[in-house]
Amino acid sequence: MSGTPDLWLVGIGTGAPGHVTLEGQEALRGASLVLVPRKGPDKADLAELRHAILRASGSGARVVEFDMPGRDPDLPYVRAVELWHDEIARRWSAAIAAAAPDGPVALLVWGDPGLYDSTLRIAARLDPAPRVRVVPGITALQALTAAHAVPFNTVNGAVVVTTGRRLRDGGWPAGAESVAVMLDGACSFQDLDPAGLRIWWGAFLGMPEQVLDAGPLAEAGPRIVARRAAARARHGWIMDTYLLRKG
Amino acid sequence: MSGTPDLWLVGIGTGAPGHVTLEGQEALRGASLVLVPRKGPDKADLAELRHAILRASGSGARVVEFDMPGRDPDLPYVRAVELWHDEIARRWSAAIAAAAPDGPVALLVWGDPGLYDSTLRIAARLDPAPRVRVVPGITALQALTAAHAVPFNTVNGAVVVTTGRRLRDGGWPAGAESVAVMLDGACSFQDLDPAGLRIWWGAFLGMPEQVLDAGPLAEAGPRIVARRAAARARHGWIMDTYLLRKG
Ligand SMILES: C[S@@+](CC[C@H](N)C(=O)[O-])C[C@H]1O[C@@H](n2cnc3c(N)ncnc32)[C@H](O)[C@@H]1O
Ligand SMILES: C[S@@+](CC[C@H](N)C(=O)[O-])C[C@H]1O[C@@H](n2cnc3c(N)ncnc32)[C@H](O)[C@@H]1O
Repeated sequence: MSGTPDLWLVGIGTGAPGHVTLEGQEALRGASLVLVPRKGPDKADLAELRHAILRASGSGARVVEFDMPGRDPDLPYVRAVELWHDEIARRWSAAIAAAAPDGPVALLVWGDPGLYDSTLRIAARLDPAPRVRVVPGITALQALTAAHAVPFNTVNGAVVVTTGRRLRDGGWPAGAESVAVMLDGACSFQDLDPAGLRIWWGAFLGMPEQVLDAGPLAEAGPRIVARRAAARARHGWIMDTYLLRKG
Repeated sequence: MSGTPDLWLVGIGTGAPGHVTLEGQEALRGASLVLVPRKGPDKADLAELRHAILRASGSGARVVEFDMPGRDPDLPYVRAVELWHDEIARRWSAAIAAAAPDGPVALLVWGDPGLYDSTLRIAARLDPAPRVRVVPGITALQALTAAHAVPFNTVNGAVVVTTGRRLRDGGWPAGAESVAVMLDGACSFQDLDPAGLRIWWGAFLGMPEQVLDAGPLAEAGPRIVARRAAARARHGWIMDTYLLRKG
């Protein structure tokens, strides 16, 4: 492993510069090289926010931008994602080799690096394998519950964290009381029987564009569908997440 | 509501001063009064860490300590907790009234204020009701997955966040792939059939006493039971959490 710099995956939160932790700032200051994607898979990888966070951290690290590859739309989804991750890993390797840093390499990861994020899986493709350090970051779900001042769970209750696709395909998870949904491009709560369900929804959480709505699903659901479409049309893109709860 | 100062619940992370976010630091600096429990329900409410975080934030707020009441051990659990929360709310009110701050009142909340925490529910008891602001903080689950550099979820997979008691009473949640367990004083993973399960466990996450273990549950489980007992005996208390995953 000699010669392979350590890789630090630094969670930066979900759009508010204030989400960055002191540990995250220190990691950015301690890194020798920071890799920043020039253009991400969606606008969430707002390069400008990353640069602002780097400046605010006082990091003196060399910053190298790399182009994110595209996903092959003609391949089956799983295969396309695998090859895409392979290609991102190759670009990291090339950028690191070219920069030849004498210390750790950092990547700024949206939200928390552990939650619905592929950075750890891409890092696992690097050969030789670097030592990986993960710095936790505020997630979209935390930004959501904070913005609504609502608890994530009921007293001693369980929460199912899931995706829009799984909610659509599998319906309300058996026995669940609270369900937190991410990666939902289709307002999949519309497929549920709304009786007895409440929703807390947020888009662009932590960002100036933040939109919130909440209420009994029967009433708030259609309102959210409309507000989401309007916000998406206005900004050209959207990121949203929500919490559903029985009773 | 005139005369009632705003209440800011500031998530401080789970033991590492570096978990504090920039927004958290700013909130502590912007508060007029900070309430700090003199002695919490367990040693997790380490008053000293809170004071260190306050000092590091550069907050000039007045700091008022208040005694945490005890829970009545002779009452049924739910009733005892209700009365306990009532009494904590009364002590906050009394401390706020005595200090008569001319700006927001802040409380430092362990981890994230939304996750298995009663601060929001206690705040809801205040009369007149203050405006409540929640500042998200790094949770024990994020400290766990970061320390192990393991993703919280599998690709597009769901995660059930639950308590030791529910795992004990209900067994493996129907259809779950990943299960994250908190508030478990009894190593409840011992009640599961370990075949095909992996565990990532951590105690005192983010603190100098941090202990980690991971592996197939059949092998790691008994080892964790022993290490937990030893760590608990050495320190006189323990806080731990774990992630279980199929396959
Ligand atoms: C690929 S996942 C990344 C999650 C990220 N690692 C985290 O910890 O929040 C992207 C999903 O996160 C949610 N998300 C991320 N940022 C968000 C934001 N600022 N507002 C609302 N939802 C957001 C959306 O559900 C989106 O589909
Ligand atoms: C009352 S809950 C508070 C959770 C907190 N609000 C959070 O966001 O992590 C306490 C439980 O959190 C977990 N926990 C909190 N801090 C921890 C730490 N430093 N290490 C391991 N587990 C911790 C344990 O499962 C403990 O029983």
